[in-house]
Amino acid sequence: MAWAFPNLAMTMHLSQIVDFLGTQGMPCELCGDGAVKIEAVNTLEDACPGEISFLANPKYARQLKTTRASAVVVSNNHRPENGLNLVRTADPYAAITALMVRLHGHRKSPQWGISERAEIADSVLLGENANIAPHVTISERVITGQNLTVYPGCYIAPGCVLGDDVTLYPNVVLYDLVTIGSRVTIHAGTVIGEDGLGYAPVKGEWVKIPQIGWVEIGDDIEIGANCTIDRATLGATVIGSGTKFSNLIAVGHGTKIGPDCLLVAQVGLAGSVTIGKHVTLAGQAGVVGHITIGDNATIGAKAGVTNNVDAETTVLGQPAVPINEAKRQFAVIQRLPDMRQRLRELENEMRRLKEQLQEQEERPPCPAPPSS
Amino acid sequence: MAWAFPNLAMTMHLSQIVDFLGTQGMPCELCGDGAVKIEAVNTLEDACPGEISFLANPKYARQLKTTRASAVVVSNNHRPENGLNLVRTADPYAAITALMVRLHGHRKSPQWGISERAEIADSVLLGENANIAPHVTISERVITGQNLTVYPGCYIAPGCVLGDDVTLYPNVVLYDLVTIGSRVTIHAGTVIGEDGLGYAPVKGEWVKIPQIGWVEIGDDIEIGANCTIDRATLGATVIGSGTKFSNLIAVGHGTKIGPDCLLVAQVGLAGSVTIGKHVTLAGQAGVVGHITIGDNATIGAKAGVTNNVDAETTVLGQPAVPINEAKRQFAVIQRLPDMRQRLRELENEMRRLKEQLQEQEERPPCPAPPSS
Amino acid sequence: MAWAFPNLAMTMHLSQIVDFLGTQGMPCELCGDGAVKIEAVNTLEDACPGEISFLANPKYARQLKTTRASAVVVSNNHRPENGLNLVRTADPYAAITALMVRLHGHRKSPQWGISERAEIADSVLLGENANIAPHVTISERVITGQNLTVYPGCYIAPGCVLGDDVTLYPNVVLYDLVTIGSRVTIHAGTVIGEDGLGYAPVKGEWVKIPQIGWVEIGDDIEIGANCTIDRATLGATVIGSGTKFSNLIAVGHGTKIGPDCLLVAQVGLAGSVTIGKHVTLAGQAGVVGHITIGDNATIGAKAGVTNNVDAETTVLGQPAVPINEAKRQFAVIQRLPDMRQRLRELENEMRRLKEQLQEQEERPPCPAPPSS
Repeated sequence: MAWAFPNLAMTMHLSQIVDFLGTQGMPCELCGDGAVKIEAVNTLEDACPGEISFLANPKYARQLKTTRASAVVVSNNHRPENGLNLVRTADPYAAITALMVRLHGHRKSPQWGISERAEIADSVLLGENANIAPHVTISERVITGQNLTVYPGCYIAPGCVLGDDVTLYPNVVLYDLVTIGSRVTIHAGTVIGEDGLGYAPVKGEWVKIPQIGWVEIGDDIEIGANCTIDRATLGATVIGSGTKFSNLIAVGHGTKIGPDCLLVAQVGLAGSVTIGKHVTLAGQAGVVGHITIGDNATIGAKAGVTNNVDAETTVLGQPAVPINEAKRQFAVIQRLPDMRQRLRELENEMRRLKEQLQEQEERPPCPAPPSS
Repeated sequence: MAWAFPNLAMTMHLSQIVDFLGTQGMPCELCGDGAVKIEAVNTLEDACPGEISFLANPKYARQLKTTRASAVVVSNNHRPENGLNLVRTADPYAAITALMVRLHGHRKSPQWGISERAEIADSVLLGENANIAPHVTISERVITGQNLTVYPGCYIAPGCVLGDDVTLYPNVVLYDLVTIGSRVTIHAGTVIGEDGLGYAPVKGEWVKIPQIGWVEIGDDIEIGANCTIDRATLGATVIGSGTKFSNLIAVGHGTKIGPDCLLVAQVGLAGSVTIGKHVTLAGQAGVVGHITIGDNATIGAKAGVTNNVDAETTVLGQPAVPINEAKRQFAVIQRLPDMRQRLRELENEMRRLKEQLQEQEERPPCPAPPSS
Repeated sequence: MAWAFPNLAMTMHLSQIVDFLGTQGMPCELCGDGAVKIEAVNTLEDACPGEISFLANPKYARQLKTTRASAVVVSNNHRPENGLNLVRTADPYAAITALMVRLHGHRKSPQWGISERAEIADSVLLGENANIAPHVTISERVITGQNLTVYPGCYIAPGCVLGDDVTLYPNVVLYDLVTIGSRVTIHAGTVIGEDGLGYAPVKGEWVKIPQIGWVEIGDDIEIGANCTIDRATLGATVIGSGTKFSNLIAVGHGTKIGPDCLLVAQVGLAGSVTIGKHVTLAGQAGVVGHITIGDNATIGAKAGVTNNVDAETTVLGQPAVPINEAKRQFAVIQRLPDMRQRLRELENEMRRLKEQLQEQEERPPCPAPPSS
């Protein structure tokens, strides 16, 4: 078995790093000593000599003064100080990402070949170079592409179809008729294709509706740990290509998520939701059923979305409203106790004023001119 | 192994479907051609010729004009249009449910018999017709009813007792002394009977309280994927018969849920909560410990319930209040910035008014009548 | 295999119980018959003769009149009534905890030895007295301490290091390079060390950032079921010693939680959060990334924490604010519809007042004195 990290790391000179980033379409400028040897990437706080770090979030800028890193990737506008080797580039975050891939690479899975302790049905069609761990169950009529890796404890139900370069981490469960594209990674404990909460109320009882639909997972998708994605009642639940999930996310039956979306941990989508492309849903956000969220929309953390959201819109709050409105509401709510106090004072002044006016009214009129 | 869906489907003439629904206590009226052949149920949007669809949510009514379905189940008041075959009945949702069961049936599990790769302790008493997959562990002194199906990766701890017709999907975990009734389905990754968060603060340290209680799951229950149901500290955590759970739901120790409740995804119940019968908890709702929720209550999505809820009541918001109050609050909150502006204007007018009044007060009195 | 509960229970005389609590640094006073035999602990409601109960939450005080318990542990100020045997002590909750440990003990795991159906890599170094179930996978270069118990379906990735007295319940997954201290219990289905949601947006695409960090779990920690703890992108995600988790909790990459914290079910922490010591996070609370929460802070249920929280502070609401402020806000929000009504009335009065004043202004001036 290949060791995971960090001994995959190899060594580069700082000048080689600058050249490499150039080849990646990230031209950068070196301010410092190109001969310095770099072995790993680390944070400004934890980096040791021989490591390169980066500054993307200005919040951490002061750490430039104290870091022990041998070099730091910064944005172009950044000035060198106290002899720290700087690599200046347009997008430090993208650059450090490329460097991490170059120096450390991605996780290498253990190599099991096809374990004799895996349970693989006769009618399964495995693509080339399958890597199947012990304690895996692959059911009848499953078809897979090349370079499939299945960790221990996974269960793949009858009729699932998987593309190339799919990795299922331990204890992933795919119910029947789930289809998965290529270059898909699913983390441990995630369940895809379970029955949704589908019951018809008949004479006060809940009658189960057979969930005869399926789930379609596109290409280039990563799904976090312990998520649950319901199969559709009819037709498909769809996760669009390029979309990424964090952990503990619930997707309801028949919901369709577009490509290149980002779902943060503990997001919950009800059934029959339609989500456009490149939508971001922040942590613990919830979306009610049968609504539509437009392309490039952003749903704030903990937002409770109860109505359609237009494309390019950011919403926040419960119920969710456009972010400016939400922030104005939050701001005013902070001031509510003060408003209440001012309202009381106005009422008092009003009372006084009315009394004063009343009293004027009752003043004796001017004396009549004397008759002569 | 039986293929799952959809080739379980069989063919019926539309007239046979009308007759069948009648036998199910759902009388309906056919407007169209009874000779049409129906092979499957599908949505209005996706249906092809040979498929029957339904209209339950008026939101989708316009799709009647475009659907390719050979027939559609609609409510009685519905008028036929452009030659679409209609089946009119009082409750289209219930009718289509009955049809889906008739045409497609429910999932058929793979048949493993009792796998030699399952780990079954000597003292286990299995009922007739047990279907135990590989990589299953059933511990000492477990007793089960008839027609038990256990998918791969499940673990059943010592002393659990299961009724008839129980299905445990992959990687379900039952801790010791969990009792489960009959006709219960538990989806993948759900954990029942783990220790709750039970600690006594003793001299600044958390001392673990042995969780010596158990869990009682009634009859006719379905529990979604990746849920967690704590065992009680003392006595029982109870899930009432007929209750249905979605996914990623957390139930605290000692909580008692009544019969025929519906819990939507990501609901969280603290410990020692008492919930009546036929209560609905919508997505991401949370309930604090030691409170009571009455029969037929409805807890809105994301509601934060901090006080008892009366029977027949719908609550919403954080903290949760009766829905009318909550909606009124939401409505006013939308208008808060406007209220604040109006308050400012009133204060200004008040100032002007007081000045004006002041100035009146200071006017010279009427001239005295000339003395003659 | 040892039976779990309750037949571990043994019998004590009430006088022995009083003596025992004294030896535990919990002096108590017996009001009643020391010869009574006690076999188990139970709730006031469910206790039978031969069982001892307790009163910690005054809410349940009235049950003292109806309980069938042979004795009850109460606080010192408590008066005996109708011949009920009372054990009076300073902290009844701590006392009953000690009694539960004494009378019932903690769960005894099944004893598997080292199962031949477990998959243990050659380079694994197991400490003494390991208890490894079937269907477990322990990967290369894993090192463990003494008295390790691993339930079925667990997966331990290459390079993990575990201390003494660690228990992993079924289907726990540890990714590569997770380190765990001593006296740690992890409940079923929890996943530790999965990749966090780490992507760099490069030309509209999400480019995966290798998550080359790791996770450090301290000593004396208990983690609930189906939690997910991301590995750090760089460096470590840290769970401090003595901290306890409930279920379905999500911890983001690089987050550092201090010692002796309490996290209730469904809490979500984003990445790079820093949490001090002895912090409590109530159910469904959420914390955004890159912020700090001080020692002994308390985060209320469902709170949405978007800014740093000072030590010793309790926050509530979304966005979270200090609890007094939050409660004042909640109180005023309840009154908002009323405030709105009062605002309307003020505006009307203001209008009337202005008219009245206007009319005064227009009154004819005093008549001029007659010229003689």
